[in-house]
Amino acid sequence: MTNQVKIFDTTLRDGEQSPGISLDVAEKLEIAEQLARLGVDIIEAGFPIASPGDFESVEAIAHSVRGPVITALSRTGFQDIDRAWAAVQHAEHPRIHVFIATSLIHMKKKLRMTEDQVKAEVVAGVSRARSYTDDVEFSPEDGSRSDVDFMCDVLQLAVDNGATTLNIPDTVGYGVPEEFGALIAHVIDRIDGDYVVSTHCHNDLGLAVANSLAGVQAGARQVECAVNGLGERAGNAALEEIVMAIKTRRDYFGGVETGVRTEELARTSRLVSRLTGYPVQYNKAVVGRNAFAHEAGIHQHGVLEDRETYEIIDASTVGQEAAQIVLGKHSGRHAFSDTLEKMGLRLQGDALNQAFRRFKELADRKVQLTDVDLEAIVAEELGTGAVHRYAIASLDVHGGTQSTPVAKVVLTDGDGKVDAEAEGNGMVDAVIAAIATATGVAGTVLDFKVSSVTGGGDALGDVVIQLQADGHTASGRGLATDIVEASARAYLNAVNKLVRLRDRAPRERTVGP
Amino acid sequence: MTNQVKIFDTTLRDGEQSPGISLDVAEKLEIAEQLARLGVDIIEAGFPIASPGDFESVEAIAHSVRGPVITALSRTGFQDIDRAWAAVQHAEHPRIHVFIATSLIHMKKKLRMTEDQVKAEVVAGVSRARSYTDDVEFSPEDGSRSDVDFMCDVLQLAVDNGATTLNIPDTVGYGVPEEFGALIAHVIDRIDGDYVVSTHCHNDLGLAVANSLAGVQAGARQVECAVNGLGERAGNAALEEIVMAIKTRRDYFGGVETGVRTEELARTSRLVSRLTGYPVQYNKAVVGRNAFAHEAGIHQHGVLEDRETYEIIDASTVGQEAAQIVLGKHSGRHAFSDTLEKMGLRLQGDALNQAFRRFKELADRKVQLTDVDLEAIVAEELGTGAVHRYAIASLDVHGGTQSTPVAKVVLTDGDGKVDAEAEGNGMVDAVIAAIATATGVAGTVLDFKVSSVTGGGDALGDVVIQLQADGHTASGRGLATDIVEASARAYLNAVNKLVRLRDRAPRERTVGP
Repeated sequence: MTNQVKIFDTTLRDGEQSPGISLDVAEKLEIAEQLARLGVDIIEAGFPIASPGDFESVEAIAHSVRGPVITALSRTGFQDIDRAWAAVQHAEHPRIHVFIATSLIHMKKKLRMTEDQVKAEVVAGVSRARSYTDDVEFSPEDGSRSDVDFMCDVLQLAVDNGATTLNIPDTVGYGVPEEFGALIAHVIDRIDGDYVVSTHCHNDLGLAVANSLAGVQAGARQVECAVNGLGERAGNAALEEIVMAIKTRRDYFGGVETGVRTEELARTSRLVSRLTGYPVQYNKAVVGRNAFAHEAGIHQHGVLEDRETYEIIDASTVGQEAAQIVLGKHSGRHAFSDTLEKMGLRLQGDALNQAFRRFKELADRKVQLTDVDLEAIVAEELGTGAVHRYAIASLDVHGGTQSTPVAKVVLTDGDGKVDAEAEGNGMVDAVIAAIATATGVAGTVLDFKVSSVTGGGDALGDVVIQLQADGHTASGRGLATDIVEASARAYLNAVNKLVRLRDRAPRERTVGP
Repeated sequence: MTNQVKIFDTTLRDGEQSPGISLDVAEKLEIAEQLARLGVDIIEAGFPIASPGDFESVEAIAHSVRGPVITALSRTGFQDIDRAWAAVQHAEHPRIHVFIATSLIHMKKKLRMTEDQVKAEVVAGVSRARSYTDDVEFSPEDGSRSDVDFMCDVLQLAVDNGATTLNIPDTVGYGVPEEFGALIAHVIDRIDGDYVVSTHCHNDLGLAVANSLAGVQAGARQVECAVNGLGERAGNAALEEIVMAIKTRRDYFGGVETGVRTEELARTSRLVSRLTGYPVQYNKAVVGRNAFAHEAGIHQHGVLEDRETYEIIDASTVGQEAAQIVLGKHSGRHAFSDTLEKMGLRLQGDALNQAFRRFKELADRKVQLTDVDLEAIVAEELGTGAVHRYAIASLDVHGGTQSTPVAKVVLTDGDGKVDAEAEGNGMVDAVIAAIATATGVAGTVLDFKVSSVTGGGDALGDVVIQLQADGHTASGRGLATDIVEASARAYLNAVNKLVRLRDRAPRERTVGP
């Protein structure tokens, strides 16, 4: 058995199914490129049948991201599989990931199929997928709650009809390590053929990482996971924890290893957090800001002694060093794009121009910008996609305890201008009302999150707003030294996205393994 | 062996050691009262020798919180133990928790002691503790990295000299479940006497919950854990995950159970998040806002079918129902205090008056207040402690893209007034500068966090600021419909705390197991 454990990242599929996350093509591409840089083995790019937007994202990633296998999720129906193949066919290494539920409750309540019907679906679906590509993965959804004998029959049919990876999902996060490990061992023992066994564990009881690792101990050589543990409900196994547990406890895991470049973990985590608007809690293992925080304020010499005493991972191993100051208001365009390139962020043409303009505006107000600030600026620009319909020309806000908050906005709209004035409960409320009036897009704010990018009183305010209107949800982010201005930018970015989304077909609400 | 697993909560000790968390006596009491309501078995209230503030908090909790055992942490020295006993002696059920490191690296680098010296310390320390109380816990710090034979010799000495609980810490979060479970089994097998074995697992590799549960499977009957998984670095095992795993997988865990009232879990999590300023990530198991989020927007009938399909925990079991609208601007003082009482929040005297005044101010601006809003109002009032030196009389702020942000504040200072005007990078920056000028307390903002209490565009803005000045750190929270006003309130609350802290002795930086 090989000692290489493949890392299958499902941030863009299962992660993106989280409530309120709605990434557009440019954002998904940016994450996929970072995942390739991180060195994951497989990127699950989406579920092409779910919506035209999903299809387009998978297709774009398959076209341009090199290195990892690119896979698309699919049910067993031919329409699903054909659509999945159409989306991934141009990938350097394409895979189709076919799934169907095998637990009694799912077959009865969701599929309304008998066991024989499910078996027939597996044979037909897997064969169809294999007719397109040699790399076919099969998942029995809700595997951990399925009858083991039936599931094994289904898995054997999948292998016999061309599946090369068998993924065992703990769809509802019900597993415990010993039991889940035993299930993996049983599958390996029972199923004949040439295949890799994979785990897909959800974290409802806080055990996703432990269950996945128990799977690896039992012989699984692929782990499905997501950056920051994103995913349905309490999420999937956290990629960064899986990778660092295998690396740190190599002695225990019998020398298995992953191909992940761990020093990219922190940046990947920040990027995903920014683009999804999902915060990472301070005490999150590996990528939380406290994961190595006991170092703070201790003299360098002390750290070196202390490190062995209280630290089992070196912060630099996961790219969690302190931010380095890189650029100021006098830095030019060349230095700006050079620095981005060193950070692995490639921007060109209009996107580079826009990012540089924002950089100069922010550098004018703030003395120094760190590399983390730069990441945020790029994220703001990329997050808005290619075309902005509206932009802020000017903003004027007044408020306090003695008067009703009021905001005036002037927006550019193509070559013209629109403006409005509005009152509100607070200054952010007023500015949102003014933008809603000026653009005619009045949505519901589902979430409003403010964080400071680098900490400290003069930090950049980083606002993410999730906005719902006409059945679409979009998130926008805004960056400014003023929190109300950042909110206005975030809201307007979300409005710009909604304007683009408005004509698209809605996404089918389909849940994967 | 009993099938009752005791839940030992260390939110107020190990949790409070997290960077930037600095709870005052009133806040610690509020959390301890909620922990008692939650039904934990043991509350580790603090580390009395560490500072006068820690001593005072432990003493206050020992005096007034009824139900759980109250314990205090202590090194082996007599001064430590005497101080710990002085703090907990008036508890209904007092315990002293003695620890010393037993790993080679800790003994050599930190303690600079030989094995024989460590043994002598254990004999002396545990005996001293036992001379005060029959309930003595002993922890060999960094146990999972200690030589097993030496650690067992030390544990046997601890039992022989009066320890009734033996806690095995995985101080650096290095353990994996199978290995840690085997260690617990070995300890039980090897050590003679009448004692309970306990686990204390850190989450550096994402395995704290799994390791603790492996300990329970092996016979541990106490689990040390913290609300929201708070604690040093990546934190401790999350209390809510431990409790729900044992409850949900009772079949697997051989029928063991805890005494926790699970329907208080969500409220406990929110209270701790508010008072510490540590956000809970959306995809956090059990208490994250997404843990049950797949229900959103699905018709009630669908939920009922779906629940069995994709959900293993009912949201109401952990108190995660949707917030119920309870009060509006016409609600009176009686209805207000009645509602709080039903929510289990007891406020009296000045605190009740202040909370009611804030409630009316906020209800005036916002149509309806939910029970989650009420919790936040109470948290704001309790979070400021008993005495406010400064309060906001009025606030006036102006900003935008065409002018420099400027803020004017008028503060009451006892019977008098102080005022100031200042400019800033942004409106929040300006208002902070104005308050700093008016109060003469100019600190460094270490963290600035904004969240909306209930979501939606007209939500209350909830700001937490961590402020450092003169070597002290304090957090303040502020609530308002306007984000700049909420920031001003949060900053001023932190200033009020710092003013009170200024004359106190600094806390010794001591790290426990």
